[in-house]
Amino acid sequence: MGRHSILVMNGPNLSRLGKREPEVYGSQTLAAINSGLESAFPEVRFGFYQSEHEGALLEKLFEIEDHGGWSGVVLNAGALTHYSIALRDAISGVSVPVVEVHMSNIYAREEFRRKSVISEVCAGVIGGFGVNSYHLGVKGLLRLLEK
Amino acid sequence: MGRHSILVMNGPNLSRLGKREPEVYGSQTLAAINSGLESAFPEVRFGFYQSEHEGALLEKLFEIEDHGGWSGVVLNAGALTHYSIALRDAISGVSVPVVEVHMSNIYAREEFRRKSVISEVCAGVIGGFGVNSYHLGVKGLLRLLEK
Amino acid sequence: MGRHSILVMNGPNLSRLGKREPEVYGSQTLAAINSGLESAFPEVRFGFYQSEHEGALLEKLFEIEDHGGWSGVVLNAGALTHYSIALRDAISGVSVPVVEVHMSNIYAREEFRRKSVISEVCAGVIGGFGVNSYHLGVKGLLRLLEK
Amino acid sequence: MGRHSILVMNGPNLSRLGKREPEVYGSQTLAAINSGLESAFPEVRFGFYQSEHEGALLEKLFEIEDHGGWSGVVLNAGALTHYSIALRDAISGVSVPVVEVHMSNIYAREEFRRKSVISEVCAGVIGGFGVNSYHLGVKGLLRLLEK
Amino acid sequence: MGRHSILVMNGPNLSRLGKREPEVYGSQTLAAINSGLESAFPEVRFGFYQSEHEGALLEKLFEIEDHGGWSGVVLNAGALTHYSIALRDAISGVSVPVVEVHMSNIYAREEFRRKSVISEVCAGVIGGFGVNSYHLGVKGLLRLLEK
Amino acid sequence: MGRHSILVMNGPNLSRLGKREPEVYGSQTLAAINSGLESAFPEVRFGFYQSEHEGALLEKLFEIEDHGGWSGVVLNAGALTHYSIALRDAISGVSVPVVEVHMSNIYAREEFRRKSVISEVCAGVIGGFGVNSYHLGVKGLLRLLEK
Amino acid sequence: MGRHSILVMNGPNLSRLGKREPEVYGSQTLAAINSGLESAFPEVRFGFYQSEHEGALLEKLFEIEDHGGWSGVVLNAGALTHYSIALRDAISGVSVPVVEVHMSNIYAREEFRRKSVISEVCAGVIGGFGVNSYHLGVKGLLRLLEK
Amino acid sequence: MGRHSILVMNGPNLSRLGKREPEVYGSQTLAAINSGLESAFPEVRFGFYQSEHEGALLEKLFEIEDHGGWSGVVLNAGALTHYSIALRDAISGVSVPVVEVHMSNIYAREEFRRKSVISEVCAGVIGGFGVNSYHLGVKGLLRLLEK
Amino acid sequence: MGRHSILVMNGPNLSRLGKREPEVYGSQTLAAINSGLESAFPEVRFGFYQSEHEGALLEKLFEIEDHGGWSGVVLNAGALTHYSIALRDAISGVSVPVVEVHMSNIYAREEFRRKSVISEVCAGVIGGFGVNSYHLGVKGLLRLLEK
Amino acid sequence: MGRHSILVMNGPNLSRLGKREPEVYGSQTLAAINSGLESAFPEVRFGFYQSEHEGALLEKLFEIEDHGGWSGVVLNAGALTHYSIALRDAISGVSVPVVEVHMSNIYAREEFRRKSVISEVCAGVIGGFGVNSYHLGVKGLLRLLEK
Amino acid sequence: MGRHSILVMNGPNLSRLGKREPEVYGSQTLAAINSGLESAFPEVRFGFYQSEHEGALLEKLFEIEDHGGWSGVVLNAGALTHYSIALRDAISGVSVPVVEVHMSNIYAREEFRRKSVISEVCAGVIGGFGVNSYHLGVKGLLRLLEK
Amino acid sequence: MGRHSILVMNGPNLSRLGKREPEVYGSQTLAAINSGLESAFPEVRFGFYQSEHEGALLEKLFEIEDHGGWSGVVLNAGALTHYSIALRDAISGVSVPVVEVHMSNIYAREEFRRKSVISEVCAGVIGGFGVNSYHLGVKGLLRLLEK
Repeated sequence: MGRHSILVMNGPNLSRLGKREPEVYGSQTLAAINSGLESAFPEVRFGFYQSEHEGALLEKLFEIEDHGGWSGVVLNAGALTHYSIALRDAISGVSVPVVEVHMSNIYAREEFRRKSVISEVCAGVIGGFGVNSYHLGVKGLLRLLEK
Repeated sequence: MGRHSILVMNGPNLSRLGKREPEVYGSQTLAAINSGLESAFPEVRFGFYQSEHEGALLEKLFEIEDHGGWSGVVLNAGALTHYSIALRDAISGVSVPVVEVHMSNIYAREEFRRKSVISEVCAGVIGGFGVNSYHLGVKGLLRLLEK
Repeated sequence: MGRHSILVMNGPNLSRLGKREPEVYGSQTLAAINSGLESAFPEVRFGFYQSEHEGALLEKLFEIEDHGGWSGVVLNAGALTHYSIALRDAISGVSVPVVEVHMSNIYAREEFRRKSVISEVCAGVIGGFGVNSYHLGVKGLLRLLEK
Repeated sequence: MGRHSILVMNGPNLSRLGKREPEVYGSQTLAAINSGLESAFPEVRFGFYQSEHEGALLEKLFEIEDHGGWSGVVLNAGALTHYSIALRDAISGVSVPVVEVHMSNIYAREEFRRKSVISEVCAGVIGGFGVNSYHLGVKGLLRLLEK
Repeated sequence: MGRHSILVMNGPNLSRLGKREPEVYGSQTLAAINSGLESAFPEVRFGFYQSEHEGALLEKLFEIEDHGGWSGVVLNAGALTHYSIALRDAISGVSVPVVEVHMSNIYAREEFRRKSVISEVCAGVIGGFGVNSYHLGVKGLLRLLEK
Repeated sequence: MGRHSILVMNGPNLSRLGKREPEVYGSQTLAAINSGLESAFPEVRFGFYQSEHEGALLEKLFEIEDHGGWSGVVLNAGALTHYSIALRDAISGVSVPVVEVHMSNIYAREEFRRKSVISEVCAGVIGGFGVNSYHLGVKGLLRLLEK
Repeated sequence: MGRHSILVMNGPNLSRLGKREPEVYGSQTLAAINSGLESAFPEVRFGFYQSEHEGALLEKLFEIEDHGGWSGVVLNAGALTHYSIALRDAISGVSVPVVEVHMSNIYAREEFRRKSVISEVCAGVIGGFGVNSYHLGVKGLLRLLEK
Repeated sequence: MGRHSILVMNGPNLSRLGKREPEVYGSQTLAAINSGLESAFPEVRFGFYQSEHEGALLEKLFEIEDHGGWSGVVLNAGALTHYSIALRDAISGVSVPVVEVHMSNIYAREEFRRKSVISEVCAGVIGGFGVNSYHLGVKGLLRLLEK
Repeated sequence: MGRHSILVMNGPNLSRLGKREPEVYGSQTLAAINSGLESAFPEVRFGFYQSEHEGALLEKLFEIEDHGGWSGVVLNAGALTHYSIALRDAISGVSVPVVEVHMSNIYAREEFRRKSVISEVCAGVIGGFGVNSYHLGVKGLLRLLEK
Repeated sequence: MGRHSILVMNGPNLSRLGKREPEVYGSQTLAAINSGLESAFPEVRFGFYQSEHEGALLEKLFEIEDHGGWSGVVLNAGALTHYSIALRDAISGVSVPVVEVHMSNIYAREEFRRKSVISEVCAGVIGGFGVNSYHLGVKGLLRLLEK
Repeated sequence: MGRHSILVMNGPNLSRLGKREPEVYGSQTLAAINSGLESAFPEVRFGFYQSEHEGALLEKLFEIEDHGGWSGVVLNAGALTHYSIALRDAISGVSVPVVEVHMSNIYAREEFRRKSVISEVCAGVIGGFGVNSYHLGVKGLLRLLEK
Repeated sequence: MGRHSILVMNGPNLSRLGKREPEVYGSQTLAAINSGLESAFPEVRFGFYQSEHEGALLEKLFEIEDHGGWSGVVLNAGALTHYSIALRDAISGVSVPVVEVHMSNIYAREEFRRKSVISEVCAGVIGGFGVNSYHLGVKGLLRLLEK
């Protein structure tokens, strides 16, 4: 099997990592997290995408499906996790596996954050490990791809 | 204390003020409302921003945070008030106070309009005074800033 | 138009302002708040009424209606906000506008404090500005009266 | 009465028709559906609009209202059907009739798809006829216009 | 393919069309609606059945199934729509397609009218077009039969 | 920092892995999974414990706390995940981190399996990767320990 | 004003009065109750109708509407009170007043009996007076007719 | 049996009858209603009591119980109907029958008015007949007393 | 004790057994099931009754009560199980025991089929054994009668 | 430590003890209960207060706070327990400990009595021991004061 | 087909049969019930197992699955019926049919007893026949095995 | 009356008292608490039992019932309080009184801890007094025994 390529997608507000509520989300910026992934998984070709726009995230997912080239997706959908049925529908139309990650443990936070409308169409879920949630997401995705 | 600068933000459909359902929202356009604020508070430097896009509103809030220059925000989030957890997260990442305003009294309308997902992260809430809700919002914000 | 007269009404526990939980309600007493309103709005004739008794608040509202003399009411109903349908019915029988105010942002507190049974029959709602909620309430009421 | 002009609008994910889950949505692309409508109703002037962006759909609805030229709208709002109160507000500000269509029978799907937040402000609802839902939508809209 | 035969069934209270609440249901009687269908679709052989009795509607559906002769059913179940699980079971035992129609938009009416217990077993749903809901129902049924 | 020691605990029914519903849980036995962990993480000292008894799991957790020697716990609580508040209380009394793992994605299963009463007191949550959920759990735990 | 004529209607199971659960419903038969009404209100012309069939009750209500001759209806709908939306729709199509009566106090019984789907379309409601509920119903109806 | 004496009690806001929302409650004052009862039932000795205070209503009910002299109570509890469990407890401690009356049909009003916390401990319930609800209440009470 | 006589009653849609969804309900007709009961229990005198009409089932239950001759009833109420409070009331007025049977296991089907409004007034409940549910129902009824 | 002084407060309907429903509340009057406390705890200085008025209970609590002299409060709030948020707020403003007592076990009574809105702000809760609940309340309060 | 062997399993508290609440559960001990089954079905080889421990019941079910020898299970899970998802999971891993029995009619008892978390994975359900529920359970199981 | 003997039972996690979350549960071990009870009530013969196993607690309760010797039980069921219907059933089968105690005030903690499934079958409830809850429980039990 050749080299895997993984797209790491981040939704609304995640461009603010390292700038906002560091006691919850840590002090690393998204760029630093992305670099960290590249260092940790040199065998993987990474792509990175972030947007505050639900619609733009959908378009990115369609592009993946249409142009191929990606083995899977690691997705931190941010707050869209909790209400974007449109994102859910887009994920279910993607044929490569999508792994849902969260830096915090959403099940230990406010009531409205405990419901994810996308979990049902994702391959797996990881939450609560801070920056390492992304690392575990990539790891888990690789394992799924190796099956 | 120097001159305060306040950003007045409006969400989806509020560009339609004066054009749509005047019996509910009055006959003033958003431009007229904005001018009215400038006239009423000559000591304040105002900025105005409106968008139909949840994502664009987030980006504006990030800009405020990153580039400074604003003492606070008066926000009428329109229908996003009721479901945009992404907007809520963006507001909670803004360090200047945000005051939530509504022209109509949302607590006297349809059931689904009585729930605001952003109130919890706003400094204060004002509703039901029509165009004057904005004026009271600015007033209230100034008071908070003077504390 | 002549001078406006406004009745500022406070419900249960608000006689304790300045004595109870100052970190939530500030250190000003109700008397000080009332004086503050008189200073801030010298053009308004104020009346002040507070009671721990739901029934007494109703009787005051009837008096307003029967004897006239008041242009409007600014009401902080305290805990009755959340369950007194009797107060709601009394408000809806008052022909001058009633503005609902809260010192704290009730929508950011315990679940049971997020529901107001009186909002539907009040002209407008203001919450979260501490003592200034009263000032904004008077201001908002004056605006409504000027229409 | 002259020739009718109808705008056929499609929301998030509907650009994927024919590419995604053909067993649910059929194998026709959106372009093919649109052509089919033009063939079936030669007496109608059609416009077509699709976007993944809630905000863009709102802007299109405002344009209709401001620039006129359209007799009515046939709208498949996709997943926004279930949570976009902003879209609902925009529809209720449009003075020509809007007909809500769905290819699948949303009332026979997952619980969260059975609720439409826009039905209340649409002239009529049609679901379950696949591509023909659009045809029936146009037909129904024409009937409403002929009244 | 030969000529289609369609049974148009109406449930409780629909014998009152044209007599009851004309502002909601229009002024045409059920007989007039039925004639209108015959005129509009001369290529279809129609049957018509109406009853106030849940049990009689079931028996009619069994007859369809047992004696054949019908290509499909257009059904306005009236108030039974909202609670008759017996009707639902009978429909699911019918092998020709059943299209659910409503003259008014039930999703824009009282809470208890927004739930249909039969939608899940019907081929499609049409509501809100007044008398034309029947016409669209026949049209939609013909399309389903042509597939 | 010296070598880490991790206790892998499994709750009711998990002794049946490889014997029960292999299409859901895979065909590996628990013993095989445990060996797999030892192979994959040679630098870790592992302990393994499984019981069908809620009480026995509690006693094991107390033993960890009292006798020390473990750096953390990877726990698949099986069905107890959904109702054992006793287990929750025991976990919250353990001072080393506990990572919750599930082989299947519980958020994509029956309604009653979507609620976890232990997530709130666990350090992180991983689900949906089959046998690899354990591997990711160990990985994630090591990361937490390295912080 | 001439003599009033009142139709007393009874729904399912009420033919069993005097035979079933006398400790709840008293020992008078429906015939005896009806005679009692004729004796008590000699100035009224009475009609009496009872059926176990929802459909038959609807047909009777239509007959009232179509053939006139009745000043109003006193209705004990029995168990249909709690679920027959069809009956509700029929009542709302009757132009003479309908008074809802119950022998027992339904609000003091099982949870499912506390909801009436017909109250909203009836002129008034009387419950808890046993046989006298009918007498009070006739009395109340006469009062409404005299207005 | 001697002459009956009946206490007619009215709760909060009912002192306003004839002054407030006459389109809902009619134009008769409470005094006029009371006189009307005395005229209509000359054989009954009446007492009348009204208070805006929940506590005062309780004290009146205790007085009835302690000093006797009343055959029964006709009670319009106003808004307390919907939440005063204290009133409910007081009623259940009264040994003469209490009949609950409402001028409007509370079951046809806002959701929160459809629940009565006192019905369960009242002998009977009457609603929707305007001023006549009191007359029917007295009538019904007399019938209960005659049993 | 002499020979027992048992009435086997079936509600809506059960006349369709053997014709409808045989994979759920088996391929035996109701007539065959009834014969099977007669063969299996030669010592019992059986009666059989089926109707699609709620009202007719009530009338049959009254007849049992009035004319006697039956030791008990085995009832498969079909879909009426889930909403017919009228049927419930009729059963509770029958003095011989009624045993509720279902061919399928209703507790393992759709949510709305898991609630039975008649269970509370039946002697026992049997579900999930296909045609044998009737046999077990008769058996259970005989046991109850022998007590 | 000197002698403790405890205020025993009782809310609505508790003046009726010994007169009302003795099978639930025992046959001792409130005066007898109070004397019993004085006999049982001679080392304590007691005060006693009862009112049917929510407002009066609040005023008493404020007096305690303002004038001091009391070590703690034993409170049986009666029915106010279940809805008086005003009482809750007053208790939370009292700086000495308040112990909530109930004679009956409220958790074994009607659904609406199982919720206490004041428990959250009381030091402890005691219920179900009849008159002895007061004794245990005093005992518990003394223990808290001794800490 | 050879002789069937059936394991009769009983959960928590069922060891108390005949000792506890005989008015609900009858006066036979579990041993007597078991003997009764052996007498009634001499053609069956029976095994009997009872435990108060959820975990022990699971281990017994695993043993059945692993060592074979049983044709099916008759299970009265006692209170575990209502919350033990672990038991549910164990049952679904057993390949021989499991029949759920209850001595009382659980659907006619307290609300929390009406929900069974195991019904969905059992072959059939029997309740309400006292000791005979076991007999009918064995009978039903034999029928299922004969199919 | 002779000397009383009381069994003090503790459920899951309570063996950890003094070791776990001392800020909530205090620093005394269960052994110390038990000794404290023996010192405080020298006239009582005590027994002590603790288990993490629901089943073991049931067996202990059966033993009490079968072998007698105990006047009553003081029970802190720990987390089983909130879900163990099996424990509830066992308590209701015990003929001596059982008093439910909690060290913390469970009604002031997380939502899921506010519901007790055992309160309904216990003689009384005490919570919030820390170690003293046990003392008050013994006291209350003695009072109940003296009645």
